[in-house]
Amino acid sequence: MLDSLFKPKSVAVIGASVKELSIGNRIIRNLLDFGYKGFIYPINPQAPEIQGIRAYKSILDVPGEIDLAHIIIPSKFVPQTVEECGKKRVKSIIINSAGFKETGPEGEEIENDFLSRAKKYGIRVFGPNCQGIINTDPDVRAYCNFAFTRPEAGYISIVAQSGGVGELIHHGFFEMGIGTRLYASNGNACDISISEIVKYFGDDSETRVVVLYIESISDPETFIKTAREATAKKPLLAMKAGRTGEGARAVSSHIGGLSEKEITTDIIFEKAGILVFENEGDLCRAASAFALQPVPKSNRVGIITNTGGPAIISTDVLISSGLDIPMLSEKAKELLKARLYPEACVNNPVDVLATGKGEHFRAAIEIMMNEDQIDSIFINFVTPFFVDTISIAKEIANAGKWKKKPIICNLMTDKSCWAETIGILKDGGIPCYSFPSDAAKALVALVRRKVE
Amino acid sequence: MLDSLFKPKSVAVIGASVKELSIGNRIIRNLLDFGYKGFIYPINPQAPEIQGIRAYKSILDVPGEIDLAHIIIPSKFVPQTVEECGKKRVKSIIINSAGFKETGPEGEEIENDFLSRAKKYGIRVFGPNCQGIINTDPDVRAYCNFAFTRPEAGYISIVAQSGGVGELIHHGFFEMGIGTRLYASNGNACDISISEIVKYFGDDSETRVVVLYIESISDPETFIKTAREATAKKPLLAMKAGRTGEGARAVSSHIGGLSEKEITTDIIFEKAGILVFENEGDLCRAASAFALQPVPKSNRVGIITNTGGPAIISTDVLISSGLDIPMLSEKAKELLKARLYPEACVNNPVDVLATGKGEHFRAAIEIMMNEDQIDSIFINFVTPFFVDTISIAKEIANAGKWKKKPIICNLMTDKSCWAETIGILKDGGIPCYSFPSDAAKALVALVRRKVE
Repeated sequence: MLDSLFKPKSVAVIGASVKELSIGNRIIRNLLDFGYKGFIYPINPQAPEIQGIRAYKSILDVPGEIDLAHIIIPSKFVPQTVEECGKKRVKSIIINSAGFKETGPEGEEIENDFLSRAKKYGIRVFGPNCQGIINTDPDVRAYCNFAFTRPEAGYISIVAQSGGVGELIHHGFFEMGIGTRLYASNGNACDISISEIVKYFGDDSETRVVVLYIESISDPETFIKTAREATAKKPLLAMKAGRTGEGARAVSSHIGGLSEKEITTDIIFEKAGILVFENEGDLCRAASAFALQPVPKSNRVGIITNTGGPAIISTDVLISSGLDIPMLSEKAKELLKARLYPEACVNNPVDVLATGKGEHFRAAIEIMMNEDQIDSIFINFVTPFFVDTISIAKEIANAGKWKKKPIICNLMTDKSCWAETIGILKDGGIPCYSFPSDAAKALVALVRRKVE
Repeated sequence: MLDSLFKPKSVAVIGASVKELSIGNRIIRNLLDFGYKGFIYPINPQAPEIQGIRAYKSILDVPGEIDLAHIIIPSKFVPQTVEECGKKRVKSIIINSAGFKETGPEGEEIENDFLSRAKKYGIRVFGPNCQGIINTDPDVRAYCNFAFTRPEAGYISIVAQSGGVGELIHHGFFEMGIGTRLYASNGNACDISISEIVKYFGDDSETRVVVLYIESISDPETFIKTAREATAKKPLLAMKAGRTGEGARAVSSHIGGLSEKEITTDIIFEKAGILVFENEGDLCRAASAFALQPVPKSNRVGIITNTGGPAIISTDVLISSGLDIPMLSEKAKELLKARLYPEACVNNPVDVLATGKGEHFRAAIEIMMNEDQIDSIFINFVTPFFVDTISIAKEIANAGKWKKKPIICNLMTDKSCWAETIGILKDGGIPCYSFPSDAAKALVALVRRKVE
């Protein structure tokens, strides 16, 4: 349906430019740098080539078929260009340019003009006044966007009205070392809607979790229906924008007017079964947990730690968020006593001690995995210099492969000195966080998916 | 008072070891790696040298004076060793070893024994069962600790009962690129108390903010008195531990029993005028703001942004935390209209647009600085590839030097591509954060210091 947008076999850039600091140059560079697998056709009336790629005077001169065309030219020229795209049988267009409905009646007229021409030819329009899309699929590698984040391939897909917040969230994953799958920031959204994108992401088999940033919803009924269908398949996480009156007014001036109905996104999110976050860091960390771990059966957490204080902090967050840290069975305690150091604490939290080795972590994880009254495992792992942290990481990563109960890890370490240890956990798909509160909140989000 | 502990001219390590994965080896390595400015005397009955430094069989064999001695030997040998330290006129000792009061009556007896000997000779004792201290002062560079964080010199001093949480917070600053000044984690605290350390940090002219992690307070009256004196000079920020019943029980099992009185740290913190945080990331980000910026006169914030969505998110956080984003005066709006792009938004938030240049940021900052109804400036700065972000950073850094009103910056960028821009802001002492909510919360903390 939106394959020509998200999986284009060829991309034309109308308004391609030789000027390095222009969007028409940057998009071609981004496609090249990201290793785009399809054909790139720069369109420019003068330049014979751009970024080393042969340019064409008109889209009609391009020899091959065109799935997707960027349009980066002044708004008044857009309708005629869309007409030409129609003649060339372009399937989708991304209009990066601004100067349409958001600027007043004159712009609205231009928008209606290009839209009717697009409809006539069956062209789908993404934007205008937007950033674009990214697809990290190794077979596609489409960076149809002028942003700067260079994601690894992953399981999280992002849809954001605001390019600024989209990039913010996307870069948040990048900084956390978490890959992403599909990205879409569709600005004014005159044709392809957030709802359609949500449906597409919901149907994408490689997308395990969808992250949304929505400032206003133009068709709440369709959105709720689509989002509910998607949430039945995978979790949808949203950032709430404009939750205060001042914030809502700022949204309004930013996107050019909001009706009373539109700002009640929280009710819409609730009806759609979307998990809402008030903090973008919490949202990113929760998404990374959903991308890598199963959802727990219920709210009962087993904590394993090799340091006291951080276990207290995580306990506080888990309990105050309504999770339970139950006592272990007598059988489990006996088993732990037999396999841990004599001074270790065999309650929940289980403290394997700072000198605890890989075999102690393995014992604690195995026993927690087999405890009926434990639904998820929270590991507090500080890397003391005097233990073999690599073997501990291997045990945790190995247990993660069972996918029996979710494992979340608060990893307190120095990135340069313990790079190998960190790499083992990352390759093993264990979500790791640098603060106990942050890690605990990510687990709380997994439980919310189950309970809500 | 505690100068021999925090500014030792010489450090002996009793229990120095040739084994790389031992604390007695690690501390010497840490002192060397950190560029300690004083003399190091390894004490070991067999080894002639450790880490290339001449070792002595007994502390009594050391030719020079000893300010500070680490003791890393089994607990039963500690009293006799303290006796020898007394004869050598050692001024302070850090007992890293465990096996004292926390283990029962026998350990308590040993603790009382070494304590009475220390008192006889006027030796101050730090610990036992502790990590140690760090002083980043370029004239001292004392890393009397077996931890792994390698801080830059800064203005934040940390005192933590739990070495695990102390290291967590310390490493949090390191990851944020924020320097620290003094660090102390005193474990069982048989002699030198948290209160004494707070007083010392309060009196230290280079310390601008003190961060505390306290699980229990043994002498609340003294602590409140000392902390109040310190908070009159500089802000004290604390992480609340054990705020849920389960968390409190975890504290209790971790540190070996708590009285009902001791767990009410929140009341104690309030009486002492300490700013309390429930999230360690928020605590670290607030401390970095206090380290670099003045406290605002009141709660009225001026927002300058070059991107819409993130300004909405920060507005939400500021407003829901009780801060005000007032309208600007007509005069200010006129000035902004004259100096910004025609399409720029001259309300508060002021949107200089994504294409906004250094001169536009300067205009907006200058006008905000001169507005009577604005007490602090919050900047949302995304780094588009098509503008000269270096000149924008220079304008922000330059305005920061006036120290007239605090500036907080939400900097949305890629660390590798915009390293120079980031460096200018960092060198200019502008606290920068990667998420708008995080940046807004840091500003909220500055305002709390004023209001509470």
